[in-house]
Amino acid sequence: MTSGMIVHGVPGSPYVRAALLTLEEKGAEYELAAMALGTLKQQPHLSRHPFGRIPAFEHDGWMLYETQAIMRYVDAVVPGPRLQPEETRAAARMNQLMGIADWYVMPQVSVPITRNRVVAPRFNRPVDEEAIANALPNARICIAEIGRLLDGHPWMAGDAISLADLLLAGICRCLPRRPKARRYCKNTRICAAGLRASKPVRAWPRPPGTSCSSGPRRPREPGERCGSKDLRR
Amino acid sequence: MTSGMIVHGVPGSPYVRAALLTLEEKGAEYELAAMALGTLKQQPHLSRHPFGRIPAFEHDGWMLYETQAIMRYVDAVVPGPRLQPEETRAAARMNQLMGIADWYVMPQVSVPITRNRVVAPRFNRPVDEEAIANALPNARICIAEIGRLLDGHPWMAGDAISLADLLLAGICRCLPRRPKARRYCKNTRICAAGLRASKPVRAWPRPPGTSCSSGPRRPREPGERCGSKDLRR
Repeated sequence: MTSGMIVHGVPGSPYVRAALLTLEEKGAEYELAAMALGTLKQQPHLSRHPFGRIPAFEHDGWMLYETQAIMRYVDAVVPGPRLQPEETRAAARMNQLMGIADWYVMPQVSVPITRNRVVAPRFNRPVDEEAIANALPNARICIAEIGRLLDGHPWMAGDAISLADLLLAGICRCLPRRPKARRYCKNTRICAAGLRASKPVRAWPRPPGTSCSSGPRRPREPGERCGSKDLRR
Repeated sequence: MTSGMIVHGVPGSPYVRAALLTLEEKGAEYELAAMALGTLKQQPHLSRHPFGRIPAFEHDGWMLYETQAIMRYVDAVVPGPRLQPEETRAAARMNQLMGIADWYVMPQVSVPITRNRVVAPRFNRPVDEEAIANALPNARICIAEIGRLLDGHPWMAGDAISLADLLLAGICRCLPRRPKARRYCKNTRICAAGLRASKPVRAWPRPPGTSCSSGPRRPREPGERCGSKDLRR
């Protein structure tokens, strides 16, 4: 059991979700210091993350940001099965898919499509149909390419869950629930792998003042810890 | 000695440079299959990299893309000193700085400032001064933050060169040569670390039809190999 770990971020954020999924998958003890959306570019958050993004991570007072770095660090310091394949080419596929998540899935699927199709209606904001239409060709390349690299395996880097599944699940969580997206995904196994990896996040609490988590609508108690196996199953 | 490694890309590209620097630093045998700028979104390159970017990497016919994945793979398979710290928090700093390179330095320094201030004049293209001015506040945060994380060490993740130095050196190579940039960098040790890590790239050949490498203006012979220690020193 590892304690003293705190994730600072807005629940529901794709990258916060990826960091939390990693902690969940390792069975780590941690605290989610839930933030409201409007507080990212303010102190005290800027002292944790000078670029004003999320998540920021704290381990016994030692600070770290950048989601991939947090995920790799958690995997290294929390005991239990590793979330990175030992075999060199499987590890390379994992790293490649994490790069694809950051460089292509986030800007070409999540930002233009998921934000407009899923997030905007939830907040009664206008939907930019032109942005969605313009993004579709690249989104199809993303989905086809992830499907190709899955290469028939149940998980992104082979036969066991890895950091690539957890990062992609954080970003793509909404994708398999959309009928049109499901049509493009259906031959790629992305739905199955993504949904399997994203299941634990449904148990996360929502902080007062935020509303983009899909977790139960219950405010977090001061000092309350989430994570650990009782929430996970 | 490892052979059968080919890097496909445009010499002078920041990310191609980072992959080559890693091969150079490991003392690997490799071939640079130099491409012209206009060929990225065409076959045969799209079959190597469906998103049409560079570099793409080949090892005995096995294909990989995404620069960080290539760098980590090369570090794993080529014998010699590792380019990733063993100590967990030093490794986390390395991963964090690689994330900062991709997420902040590339879009907030390299694209708006280096492309306009360094690349555009070289190709007689117009310089977007407004883009430069708008980018400066974020660029200053990038430089200050990298300087802070260097924490007085000679290299980005401590006392030895790591993949973070090689990625940042690929992206930031032009930065310390610009007088204004040097002024912002001078207290951060970025100049020294970046320039030390970027020295070997000056020996790279330029392919016919490209002109953004800083290497000697000599066309590459068919089948010519670069890399290896004779070019490096």
